[in-house]
Amino acid sequence: MRALVTGGAGFIGSHLIDRLVSRGDTVVVIDNLSSGNLDFIQNHIDSGKVSLVRGDITNYQDVLSAMSGIECVFHLAANPDIRLGTKITDTDLKQGTIATYNIVEAMRIEGVKKIAFASSSVVYGEDAPMPTPENHGPCLPISLYGASKQAGEGLISSWVGTFGLQAWIFRFANIIGTRGTHGVIFDFIHKLKADPSRLEVLGNGLQEKSYMEVGDCVDGILHVMANSNDSVNLFNLGSHDTASVRRIAEIVVEETGCTGASIEYTGGDRGWAGDIPRAMLAIDKMLEIGFDVNYNSEDAIRHTARALIDEIGL
Amino acid sequence: MRALVTGGAGFIGSHLIDRLVSRGDTVVVIDNLSSGNLDFIQNHIDSGKVSLVRGDITNYQDVLSAMSGIECVFHLAANPDIRLGTKITDTDLKQGTIATYNIVEAMRIEGVKKIAFASSSVVYGEDAPMPTPENHGPCLPISLYGASKQAGEGLISSWVGTFGLQAWIFRFANIIGTRGTHGVIFDFIHKLKADPSRLEVLGNGLQEKSYMEVGDCVDGILHVMANSNDSVNLFNLGSHDTASVRRIAEIVVEETGCTGASIEYTGGDRGWAGDIPRAMLAIDKMLEIGFDVNYNSEDAIRHTARALIDEIGL
Repeated sequence: MRALVTGGAGFIGSHLIDRLVSRGDTVVVIDNLSSGNLDFIQNHIDSGKVSLVRGDITNYQDVLSAMSGIECVFHLAANPDIRLGTKITDTDLKQGTIATYNIVEAMRIEGVKKIAFASSSVVYGEDAPMPTPENHGPCLPISLYGASKQAGEGLISSWVGTFGLQAWIFRFANIIGTRGTHGVIFDFIHKLKADPSRLEVLGNGLQEKSYMEVGDCVDGILHVMANSNDSVNLFNLGSHDTASVRRIAEIVVEETGCTGASIEYTGGDRGWAGDIPRAMLAIDKMLEIGFDVNYNSEDAIRHTARALIDEIGL
Repeated sequence: MRALVTGGAGFIGSHLIDRLVSRGDTVVVIDNLSSGNLDFIQNHIDSGKVSLVRGDITNYQDVLSAMSGIECVFHLAANPDIRLGTKITDTDLKQGTIATYNIVEAMRIEGVKKIAFASSSVVYGEDAPMPTPENHGPCLPISLYGASKQAGEGLISSWVGTFGLQAWIFRFANIIGTRGTHGVIFDFIHKLKADPSRLEVLGNGLQEKSYMEVGDCVDGILHVMANSNDSVNLFNLGSHDTASVRRIAEIVVEETGCTGASIEYTGGDRGWAGDIPRAMLAIDKMLEIGFDVNYNSEDAIRHTARALIDEIGL
C-alpha cells in the first residue's frame, strides 16, 4: 500500500513508519520538520521505502502535491504543544483545523478514500466520567488544541458523509516513548539537566492521566484498521490505568539519578488553563476488537524516562 | 444590556432583535447582508435602538470593531445553505469555523464574557437515536455545515475553559417562520411560483424532521439564558414532533392554492449527500428549565407557508 503520513518525521509518525515499512508499505511523508526530526526516519529514506515531502500541511498546494497516488492517509501532524493555545490562539486553528481541511479536500480532489486520524482524549473535556467511553457526550474541550482535534473529527466525518471517505478516528491517551519531543517526561528531564538540585512541577502534582507507550499506540492503530470496516471507526486508544504527575516526577528523579533533587509544586489543580487534571479513557472497545497494550502507565513512564535520558543525555 | 448579534439582519437574528429591543437592550448588528435583509430591522435602526456594522465576520478587524463595549454576543451568522457544501467545500470552514474563531478571539481581546451560539441538530450526524438528547455521542456530522457547527461549539467551549467565557450553546431543530430566506418551504413556494403545475421534491419525500417556529426559537433562547448559569449551557431547542417532506409539500400546495400541482419526487432517501433523512431532538432539558413551544411541527409549517406566500407573493 502507498501511504501518506503527515508529521511522519515526528514522534508517533516515525514509529508508525517503522511498522508500515516493515509490513511492506511505501510511505510518503509530509513534514515541515518543526518538531519532527529527519534522523527518526533517515534509515527508511536511505533504503528507498520512504520519500519526504518537506512541506507544510497548512499549505494546500503542499498537501495536494503529496497526495498523488496515495491509498491511505495517516494524519498525525499537529501542533504538539497544548499549552501554547493559552498564549497564541490561532496555532491550533491553522495547524489543526485548517490543515485537516486541506488534507480531506486534497483527498477528495485526488480520489483518496481512507484516512486514519490522531485525535485525543482531550476532546472529551473536563467533566467526562472516568474512564470515558467513546459514546460520551457532549464533548466540550477546554483547550484550543482539544477544539482543533474535535473540529478535525467533524471535518473528517463530514467528508465521509458527503464525499464517501472511510475514516478511523483514534482518541489517544497521553502517548509517550522513545523519540518523544515534548510532554511532561521530556520537560522534567530537561529541567533536571539544567538544574539537578530541583524539579519544578506545574500544578500540585495530583493531576492523574493515562499513559500509553508509543509502540502500543501504533500497533493499536494498525490492529484496529485491519479489523474494523465501518464508514467511521472511532476508537479510544489507551492503557488500563493512570499515573499522577507526582509519580512521574519521582520516577524521572530516580532514573536520572538526581535523587537529591527537591520536587517543587507550583500549586493549583492543573498545569495551565485548559489542562485537564484527570483523564482516563475507557478501552473496552479496543480490547473487544482484540488489541491490548504491553505497558501499563507506570511501566511506560519508566521505559520512556530511560529512553529519553539516553536520547537527551544528562 | 448592550448585545452584539451576528447575522442580525437575517431570519433568526431579526426576530431575536425584536425581543431584545422590546426588553430594552441596545443592539449592535454585524451583518454582510448576503442573506440578511435590512428591511427586517430597519424600524429598530430608525428608532435608534439598533446600530448596524455592515461587515463580514470572516474579517477579524470587522468583528473586533463591532465588539467594543458589548456585554453579550449572540452568534447566529453562518452560511444558511447546508447543501452548498456538496459543491463548495470551504464556505462552512470560513463562514462557520474561522468566523467563530474571530468572534471568540475578539471577545477575549475586548473582555466580553457571554456568548450564545446557534448550533444545530445536524451536529449529531446520521445514526443518533431519535429523539436525540444533548448527551448523545459521538457526534459525527455528515455535512460540512454540521462540521462547522461542531467546530464552533468546540472553539467556544475551549475559550470558556481557557479564557473564562460563559456560553449558551443551542442545537436547533429546523427553524421556520416569517422572514425565512431559505429552506424547504421557501424553496417549494418559489418552485410553485415559477411553475404552478408541478412541484419537484428532492428525495423520496419520506425525510422526517422536527420543525420549530422562529418566535418559539428566540423565546427559548432568552428563557434558557435567563434560567441557566453554568460555564457551558448546552440545550436542544425543538418541538414535540416531526413532519415529513411529503406532508410539507402537501401543505404548501394547499396553501398556495396550486391544488392541481403534481408532486414529483426525485427519489432516494435524502435530498442531497450530507442531508440527514430523519432528525428529532429530545427537548426534555428545555422543558425541564420551564420552556415550551407554542407550535408543533405541522402548525409551524402551515403558519410559515402562509407568511412566506404573503412575503414572496405568488
